[in-house]
Amino acid sequence: MSHDENSVKPWGGRFSEATDAFVERFTASVNFDQRLYHHDINGSIAHATMLASVGVLSDDEKNAIIEGLEGIRKDIESGAFTWSVSLEDVHMNIEAELTKRIGITGKKLHTGRSRNDQVATDIRLYLRDEIDVIGKELTRLQQGLLFLAEREAHTIMPGFTHLQTAQPVTFGHHLLAWYEMLSRDYGRLMGCRKRLNQSPLGAAALAGTTYPIDREQTAALLGFNHPTRNSLDSVSDRDFAIEFSAFAALLMTHLSRASEELVLWTSAQFNFIDLPDRFCTGSSIMPQKKNPDVPELVRGKTGRVNGHLIALLTLMKSQPLAYNKDNQEDKEPLFDTVDTVKDCLRAFADMVPALNANKAAMLEAAKRGFSTATDLADYLVRKGIPFRDSHEIVGKSVAFGIAQNKDLSEMTLAELQQFSDVIENDVFDVLTLEGSVAARDHIGGTAPAQVLKAVELAKEELAAR
Amino acid sequence: MSHDENSVKPWGGRFSEATDAFVERFTASVNFDQRLYHHDINGSIAHATMLASVGVLSDDEKNAIIEGLEGIRKDIESGAFTWSVSLEDVHMNIEAELTKRIGITGKKLHTGRSRNDQVATDIRLYLRDEIDVIGKELTRLQQGLLFLAEREAHTIMPGFTHLQTAQPVTFGHHLLAWYEMLSRDYGRLMGCRKRLNQSPLGAAALAGTTYPIDREQTAALLGFNHPTRNSLDSVSDRDFAIEFSAFAALLMTHLSRASEELVLWTSAQFNFIDLPDRFCTGSSIMPQKKNPDVPELVRGKTGRVNGHLIALLTLMKSQPLAYNKDNQEDKEPLFDTVDTVKDCLRAFADMVPALNANKAAMLEAAKRGFSTATDLADYLVRKGIPFRDSHEIVGKSVAFGIAQNKDLSEMTLAELQQFSDVIENDVFDVLTLEGSVAARDHIGGTAPAQVLKAVELAKEELAAR
Amino acid sequence: MSHDENSVKPWGGRFSEATDAFVERFTASVNFDQRLYHHDINGSIAHATMLASVGVLSDDEKNAIIEGLEGIRKDIESGAFTWSVSLEDVHMNIEAELTKRIGITGKKLHTGRSRNDQVATDIRLYLRDEIDVIGKELTRLQQGLLFLAEREAHTIMPGFTHLQTAQPVTFGHHLLAWYEMLSRDYGRLMGCRKRLNQSPLGAAALAGTTYPIDREQTAALLGFNHPTRNSLDSVSDRDFAIEFSAFAALLMTHLSRASEELVLWTSAQFNFIDLPDRFCTGSSIMPQKKNPDVPELVRGKTGRVNGHLIALLTLMKSQPLAYNKDNQEDKEPLFDTVDTVKDCLRAFADMVPALNANKAAMLEAAKRGFSTATDLADYLVRKGIPFRDSHEIVGKSVAFGIAQNKDLSEMTLAELQQFSDVIENDVFDVLTLEGSVAARDHIGGTAPAQVLKAVELAKEELAAR
Amino acid sequence: MSHDENSVKPWGGRFSEATDAFVERFTASVNFDQRLYHHDINGSIAHATMLASVGVLSDDEKNAIIEGLEGIRKDIESGAFTWSVSLEDVHMNIEAELTKRIGITGKKLHTGRSRNDQVATDIRLYLRDEIDVIGKELTRLQQGLLFLAEREAHTIMPGFTHLQTAQPVTFGHHLLAWYEMLSRDYGRLMGCRKRLNQSPLGAAALAGTTYPIDREQTAALLGFNHPTRNSLDSVSDRDFAIEFSAFAALLMTHLSRASEELVLWTSAQFNFIDLPDRFCTGSSIMPQKKNPDVPELVRGKTGRVNGHLIALLTLMKSQPLAYNKDNQEDKEPLFDTVDTVKDCLRAFADMVPALNANKAAMLEAAKRGFSTATDLADYLVRKGIPFRDSHEIVGKSVAFGIAQNKDLSEMTLAELQQFSDVIENDVFDVLTLEGSVAARDHIGGTAPAQVLKAVELAKEELAAR
Repeated sequence: MSHDENSVKPWGGRFSEATDAFVERFTASVNFDQRLYHHDINGSIAHATMLASVGVLSDDEKNAIIEGLEGIRKDIESGAFTWSVSLEDVHMNIEAELTKRIGITGKKLHTGRSRNDQVATDIRLYLRDEIDVIGKELTRLQQGLLFLAEREAHTIMPGFTHLQTAQPVTFGHHLLAWYEMLSRDYGRLMGCRKRLNQSPLGAAALAGTTYPIDREQTAALLGFNHPTRNSLDSVSDRDFAIEFSAFAALLMTHLSRASEELVLWTSAQFNFIDLPDRFCTGSSIMPQKKNPDVPELVRGKTGRVNGHLIALLTLMKSQPLAYNKDNQEDKEPLFDTVDTVKDCLRAFADMVPALNANKAAMLEAAKRGFSTATDLADYLVRKGIPFRDSHEIVGKSVAFGIAQNKDLSEMTLAELQQFSDVIENDVFDVLTLEGSVAARDHIGGTAPAQVLKAVELAKEELAAR
Repeated sequence: MSHDENSVKPWGGRFSEATDAFVERFTASVNFDQRLYHHDINGSIAHATMLASVGVLSDDEKNAIIEGLEGIRKDIESGAFTWSVSLEDVHMNIEAELTKRIGITGKKLHTGRSRNDQVATDIRLYLRDEIDVIGKELTRLQQGLLFLAEREAHTIMPGFTHLQTAQPVTFGHHLLAWYEMLSRDYGRLMGCRKRLNQSPLGAAALAGTTYPIDREQTAALLGFNHPTRNSLDSVSDRDFAIEFSAFAALLMTHLSRASEELVLWTSAQFNFIDLPDRFCTGSSIMPQKKNPDVPELVRGKTGRVNGHLIALLTLMKSQPLAYNKDNQEDKEPLFDTVDTVKDCLRAFADMVPALNANKAAMLEAAKRGFSTATDLADYLVRKGIPFRDSHEIVGKSVAFGIAQNKDLSEMTLAELQQFSDVIENDVFDVLTLEGSVAARDHIGGTAPAQVLKAVELAKEELAAR
Repeated sequence: MSHDENSVKPWGGRFSEATDAFVERFTASVNFDQRLYHHDINGSIAHATMLASVGVLSDDEKNAIIEGLEGIRKDIESGAFTWSVSLEDVHMNIEAELTKRIGITGKKLHTGRSRNDQVATDIRLYLRDEIDVIGKELTRLQQGLLFLAEREAHTIMPGFTHLQTAQPVTFGHHLLAWYEMLSRDYGRLMGCRKRLNQSPLGAAALAGTTYPIDREQTAALLGFNHPTRNSLDSVSDRDFAIEFSAFAALLMTHLSRASEELVLWTSAQFNFIDLPDRFCTGSSIMPQKKNPDVPELVRGKTGRVNGHLIALLTLMKSQPLAYNKDNQEDKEPLFDTVDTVKDCLRAFADMVPALNANKAAMLEAAKRGFSTATDLADYLVRKGIPFRDSHEIVGKSVAFGIAQNKDLSEMTLAELQQFSDVIENDVFDVLTLEGSVAARDHIGGTAPAQVLKAVELAKEELAAR
Repeated sequence: MSHDENSVKPWGGRFSEATDAFVERFTASVNFDQRLYHHDINGSIAHATMLASVGVLSDDEKNAIIEGLEGIRKDIESGAFTWSVSLEDVHMNIEAELTKRIGITGKKLHTGRSRNDQVATDIRLYLRDEIDVIGKELTRLQQGLLFLAEREAHTIMPGFTHLQTAQPVTFGHHLLAWYEMLSRDYGRLMGCRKRLNQSPLGAAALAGTTYPIDREQTAALLGFNHPTRNSLDSVSDRDFAIEFSAFAALLMTHLSRASEELVLWTSAQFNFIDLPDRFCTGSSIMPQKKNPDVPELVRGKTGRVNGHLIALLTLMKSQPLAYNKDNQEDKEPLFDTVDTVKDCLRAFADMVPALNANKAAMLEAAKRGFSTATDLADYLVRKGIPFRDSHEIVGKSVAFGIAQNKDLSEMTLAELQQFSDVIENDVFDVLTLEGSVAARDHIGGTAPAQVLKAVELAKEELAAR
């Protein structure tokens, strides 16, 4: 970087010493914040439009600015634009280029604003757009889950607690559990969107500006609900980044749980499902392997998103108002969180509806492990035995079954009656898997009828988004 | 495991506590979950009421259960109840005692539910109540801020960016920035409340139950909006704990920022405010010290809340459905987060309105540091100089001021005119602090008029809660 | 708390207003730091001894102090001591009691020190002792692993990558992988111990003291390697707590991985091991369940320890020197980390050697999944086929096996020769599981001979600790 | 998946990128792991050399491989190499190119190894080199601190606790506190280096290999201390990444504390130091600003490093052995941590020795705030007053001073004697700042003599590295 170049720096007036090259690179953000160019230009156009409407710019000046900015946008998108690290960030790069193109009028664009409110505006615009994409992708994944849940509403599998066979459930019911998690995520995402959708433009450096700006107008032009209510807060607030990251961490937690199950289910030991080959890879040394790479990778990426959340919380901890340079560090974690969430949702939305259920293996597994023991207990209660006592009776029956290697449904009536004489022949109705799941027939229960009802309600929910 | 066995094994032999006793203590939760007794009893009463209404219990049984539970509640509250670690958790302790008191009917209470849905219900009820307390405390703190902001609407202080004097602001305006942060927190808290206020009761172990339960009824009895929609999700979901912790981490981040400023402002170097003695302590070795302990401690407690958020996210990562024992670890972080947030809010709500502003020191500080430099730049722009050029002119004026040890307002007209001949006598109007703040008179700006207007709007907001 | 009580507060001299009860509770630490009483008394005795040796105290005064402190220690241990929240912390509680017991001499104990160096000394002494306990427990667990690895050196199980069957390994080899993780943990623990074992006593409030203290002497009396080298650092440093927590987080990560495997292996689907009943619990609703509670709980507790690490890092971030009240928040995360690590190590050290391997199930699983496919590939390479080509040949053989439902060792020679004509009858030697594991006979390989050699070396390592 | 298929599925139809291409990009690592090319080639050369020495490769084959790899290295460094996402990672890219260049022999290079041990080897080699660079940079920063501490050994400034003036210290002493933190960091870094410097090569996929490899030889060729001891552990272990990140998080915590102080000290309110212009920037709107960007940015980057630590801990939590695809996520956090630490150390090592101390401002600040109050207390003790009583006397003197706006050293003897009649004329010797600091003349104390002695010892320490 030459000295001459330095002398035109916008804040160079009082400095006698050149910023050395390392510091320039260390403090510059243009390598990552150039991603904001589109929203930066939109924000500038809205600002220029407003400045003209309140008389700070003439219409000709406004038009020159807008035309100049649109030309720059085109060049950035075509790859013809050259970014300069010595111009620090996306804002200065674009403004310097604008001035080069349209002359002194370009310098007037910055009237009544500061980089502090400009960058706050840009990130909010950027994140709002990404939230909309993510919301759609979440919905697409949920649609896939409903498709699958409907198809598998009658498929019986073992339900687990502690990874031990607990009670039979339907696969459709299990998939709807995933659906529920994502519905809460969607609600949190919309809450985040609502809170961020306010315009900080006009907060200027920290205190507002002495120009007769119209903050309502710029807010409206940019699709914000209204202007932010305090200028100091506007330039120092990064809540939206943290709230979004908290949403993302919880979403990834949900995807990690689903991933864990997909990995388990594709193991030779479970063998409940097959994933399409395109979501798996082989091994460089073990030719027989078909590895569930996509769910594993999604599970791993949870770490990265949790990390970004902590990065942002740590960043903001104890910062005095208003803007500090620390805040420049908000962008990379946020951008990477956005990218990660989009990719993982896409991977899941593509993969999940394409998975194949090995119904026979699921059924066989449900048969093992005395999964209808609770049904026997409930049967005993209906015969008048207090619950805690019936629990004990069933415990003894199971111990007998383990010793004899017999499932409850495989025991003779006489064998069962050893443990309680209230047991009669009708007990075998409740010891079947089909009977067991069908009997859990209330809101939220695993009965196929309930699963299908839940699917219908969920479809309405998605349709109403 | 006998002592003899132990003594021959390389890994044995050094413990005096039997393994069984250790494992019992290690896996028990009653030491911390007894806090849920009140909500556990409420949940059980609702469950018993519903069981009676659907005919699973007789009215006499129901009444015996309720009476028994209310007796237990009284004993717990008076300290007469003895908790037993060997009964593992709050649920088993209460149920065992109930059976001891009312006999076999006590055992029937557990019909159609499991500890999995019982504990999920208890925590939700507990957290909902605590959220309501926290919401009130947040509001009280915000009221204190409005009181103070109104009182200090005309008090001038330096506004900082990068902890360097930037532009003069009003102290009331600064306090309203804190207010804004807390308003967003309140919004997030209410979103969390809405999402958690659903009844998991009836999900039983994981699949629902075969009893003819009425989940709508128990939901209504317990003040839930409606039953949860999927039983597997109901027993494995801990979103509410994570979402609450994320709310708390962001709230604490805000309080840490305010605390940092309080600590700075009470330093001898800033001396902007005094804290009442009761929020400070002295030193055991330095008799002259008056330490801002309360804000320091609040700042420090941010770490603990961030930590709990990570604890919960890590806990849930990759857990297969449905309930796993890991989930027992959800309570301590959640309880401590609740306690911490309540205490910190209380400390702030008590302390903030009692602080005293050293107006003279604030004003003096605002005068130093060329805080009206931007006003000079704006003046030049109004005289027709492009913004970026006026910036340079002001830069040179400041450099001159530093060299001559003169604020801008202390320079002569001739001195100022060295840097630009458009400067005239009216420049001195904009170089005063009062003129500077009054001129930022738009939504969100620092002008006293705007501060007072914002206070009025905020009062309406709080009144509408 | 009465006003009279207040008036004796050690730092009360310049305060006109009573600390209100809430603030007193909020800022007090005695509820959790009373755990340090033993080390606080030891530190005070060393300090008094040194003060006498340099002539600041007379021998009579020293003896009175020591006698008084030992009496207090006895009372604390018998439960006869009454802790007072209004005396804030363990230090003031003990010192106030000492003065009550031995009069004015008690007040002289604090000569030449401050609570800042006192608490730093106490925590280091406490943590050093706990590190020694933890080191022993880690070693005990490693001994248990060696016992088991030796016993299971020839037991064949499937080795997994991506939870897909990869190659056969020996169970002993797998257990030694856990051993290795713990050996690194032990190294980190010892590094932490070395760095913390320095005496901050004498740093006083922050700058040292004007008394002619002998820091070498107190360091030696307390078993520290030497005094710390900078007084400001001594009172503001909490590295030891963070370094210990980082050690603990990595140890818990290892235990979480082992726990995950134990949970998987006890599932009906894997059924590789049985855990003794005392490390498991049943279900309140499903009588057949035997849940692996202990490993699940250990896995869950990883979250808590990661959380404490973040709590401490967040706590210390950006704190200016020297001591700030924030630092009081170092204790609870540290204490809980110590307790958690000790409990989890004890649970594992008790449980692991008591587990039972289901050798038949392990062997059966290793047979499924084409686990000797790599051996076939290696066989082909030895016959002159380039590795990447042999990989392809084996891939086709596996595809054929899947289609025909035949393991590689079950195919005929003719079937195998379809894919490569270099295959001869000797191929069946490498397709057996025993042949496969025995052939990996180099340092770190899974061959039983290597496992037994590794066990011997590991025993020497432990013996040398 | 064809477009037609997509268009009828509710979850399909909106992507223009084919799923295969997306999955390929999603799972590929070459975009970030190409950074490992240098160490990957070194590892391959060592492996080929060993394979030749044990007879698996001929010397001609070995030479062809080495020549081919060196050619590829040259092309990568000149930018002539084309990376392909469809070849997934750095390893496959290089191996495919090698085979293209030297034919079938290239395929033989992978004999007796797997990507699992290959990548583990590469990262260890990479991190070891970076650790050496970081160690040097840490030392350079410490040298800068010693230079400055020596220069400022007699410079008096206020020492703070709770950001309140506590006692006078020397600036040199304060800088040595920073030095101490970094010395502990260096110790941790070396511990990490020692533990990572073991060769996983030869672990193959997870179980070792059937080829007669010589792991000692490859370990020696690559500068590792010895081979790792367990093959399963070798491919699943990522301790080194976590341990390094924990080192980095603590180092950044230290730099954040120093940064906080630099930011405070450059504020108009403190004005203790000046930073050279090249480490600062100006404002786009406020021409008078000189912002301490570099320390602010370093402070902010603490968040990112803490975040990466959590990312890695979360990543590894609960992973069953051996390698899982999740592990691919270890690289980006590690790489970014390395880069961040190097940059921040460089920035500090360049900046710190160039800072200018405003001695007059420091001295003036130390005079305010009754910083010699402890000296008065100590004086009273030497006159026979018990410490806690003297503390009270000083408290009253300070209260009088506040009321009269007089420092202790400015009071008359008569005024001081109001509070204790043991005070005599010699009291004024201890009330000066110079007397106060000189009197703390023991190991670790703030006396200039001690500071200079500490500098000498520290120089010896650095020289011995």
